[in-house]
Amino acid sequence: MQQINQKLIESLREEEHQNTFTQLTSSSNNHNQSIFNVAENDVFTNQYFLPRNITIIGGYGRMGKFFTNQLLGAGHQVNAIGNSDWENADTLLAQADLVLISVPIEATVDIIKRAAKYLNPDAALADITSLKAEPVEAMLKYHPGPVMGLHPMFGPNVESFAGQKIVICSGRNDKAFQWLLELMQTHNGDLIYCTPEEHDRMMVMIQATRHFCRLTQGVFLAQEEVNIDRSLSMSTPGYRNEIDIVKRLFKQSPQLCVDIMLATEERCQAISSLADTYKRLANLVENKDREGLIKEFAQAQSFWGE
Amino acid sequence: MQQINQKLIESLREEEHQNTFTQLTSSSNNHNQSIFNVAENDVFTNQYFLPRNITIIGGYGRMGKFFTNQLLGAGHQVNAIGNSDWENADTLLAQADLVLISVPIEATVDIIKRAAKYLNPDAALADITSLKAEPVEAMLKYHPGPVMGLHPMFGPNVESFAGQKIVICSGRNDKAFQWLLELMQTHNGDLIYCTPEEHDRMMVMIQATRHFCRLTQGVFLAQEEVNIDRSLSMSTPGYRNEIDIVKRLFKQSPQLCVDIMLATEERCQAISSLADTYKRLANLVENKDREGLIKEFAQAQSFWGE
Repeated sequence: MQQINQKLIESLREEEHQNTFTQLTSSSNNHNQSIFNVAENDVFTNQYFLPRNITIIGGYGRMGKFFTNQLLGAGHQVNAIGNSDWENADTLLAQADLVLISVPIEATVDIIKRAAKYLNPDAALADITSLKAEPVEAMLKYHPGPVMGLHPMFGPNVESFAGQKIVICSGRNDKAFQWLLELMQTHNGDLIYCTPEEHDRMMVMIQATRHFCRLTQGVFLAQEEVNIDRSLSMSTPGYRNEIDIVKRLFKQSPQLCVDIMLATEERCQAISSLADTYKRLANLVENKDREGLIKEFAQAQSFWGE
Repeated sequence: MQQINQKLIESLREEEHQNTFTQLTSSSNNHNQSIFNVAENDVFTNQYFLPRNITIIGGYGRMGKFFTNQLLGAGHQVNAIGNSDWENADTLLAQADLVLISVPIEATVDIIKRAAKYLNPDAALADITSLKAEPVEAMLKYHPGPVMGLHPMFGPNVESFAGQKIVICSGRNDKAFQWLLELMQTHNGDLIYCTPEEHDRMMVMIQATRHFCRLTQGVFLAQEEVNIDRSLSMSTPGYRNEIDIVKRLFKQSPQLCVDIMLATEERCQAISSLADTYKRLANLVENKDREGLIKEFAQAQSFWGE
């Protein structure tokens, strides 16, 4: 039965794809209208629309809820599993067309192992952890069916995929995720494809060292007891942007920030190397070494293409 | 003659002020229209408009040119003095109603001393250096007439004062600068009043340590040879903002950045203390001290009101 369904889904993919493409093209001059039309069409009038049965592990978390809302809004059926209701896991996981893992970095590989044994072998398995090599490897190891690693480059406060980037790491049988990728694209999400290894290398700079800088900036301004409101009232646009980013960090949980910084040895080493760079340049400042600082600036300036 | 003119100017101030206020209020729902009307009115039809004779020392620099354009656009007469044409300084300075000093931080006090001796005792003297205590003190010491310290919190790439902050430090006889402050406000500049001492204390955090962080971030990403374009393609909005700010730093001259960092002993000490904070938190990362990091995060979080 599952295999017949799967074949039916595959055969309908192409027509559904063409349909979506036409809609996007024809209404590309009217952005909001296009989102509305496609969503409405998907759910109520598209004769080829196939509602999926989705189970989100960590579905009660903030990112889990974001994906739940997006998938429900597109007409799919979504179940959540949290820490407290693993007793229903066997049923909810066995009947899912897609299982999405949305749990803390530290727990991801363990949850993959625990969940995989309940999955239908044809079910699609994906995670949204901010690390990709280990989770994708674990999903491929413990689940014989379709596998994909996702990393949404945004927090749970956004309202939709519109204008947001999602990194996509292929694992096995991408075709089984086509409908999900199309859903994100239809809602103007920006999909970026890369290997898990490239993702993890890039995130050392994009996430780990930046979280460290924002945390340190926040700690420093707190220890100096700076009047932030007054400083904002007389600041440059750049400073206001930077303070906004620090404020957003402290709206997150300490655990998430610390997990992101400590997730791999490579991240810890990069943070250590960044602090050394801070110390090296601060020594030049302490020594009022104008020439040394100008030399550092000029070297970096050529890298930045100026 | 100069004194008669000055009295005439003062007596007309109040009416001009009322006039401008009425225009701003009546057209507050139509922003662009309001700017256009006021500018046109100032130059061509306002019977109370008094074109001023302004000399900008450093008028050929980028910020000097910005002020030249704004003042010319408002119908005033502007002369520039640069490094190479001090031979005309005596005439241009002696005839000026306002002398505006727009030179590097390091040169400001020296230029104030050199310029003051040529000024009419009633002339208004202002500077736009990003340090305020020393220059305002020097202007008060070497010039007996009206004195004001200004710090535009924006770079020379902006098109007008609209939406930009300008810090105002009173020196002596604010009234003589009323027309200039009104010009900036009429064009929707945001004026912030403070003492030179508060300005300088705030700028340690707003400018000096932030320039140091942006420089260090730029140097670090250069030494790690990060593919910036690729990183931007898969990044969070926060990272993209931060990279934009670093890019803007490297469009400036190395001298300006170094001047801002080294301008006072207080700035150098704050930068040194910031680097120590980086090192302290990096040690926690190196030791994988999850509890220590969470404690630092939580302490700062309470300062940030979360």
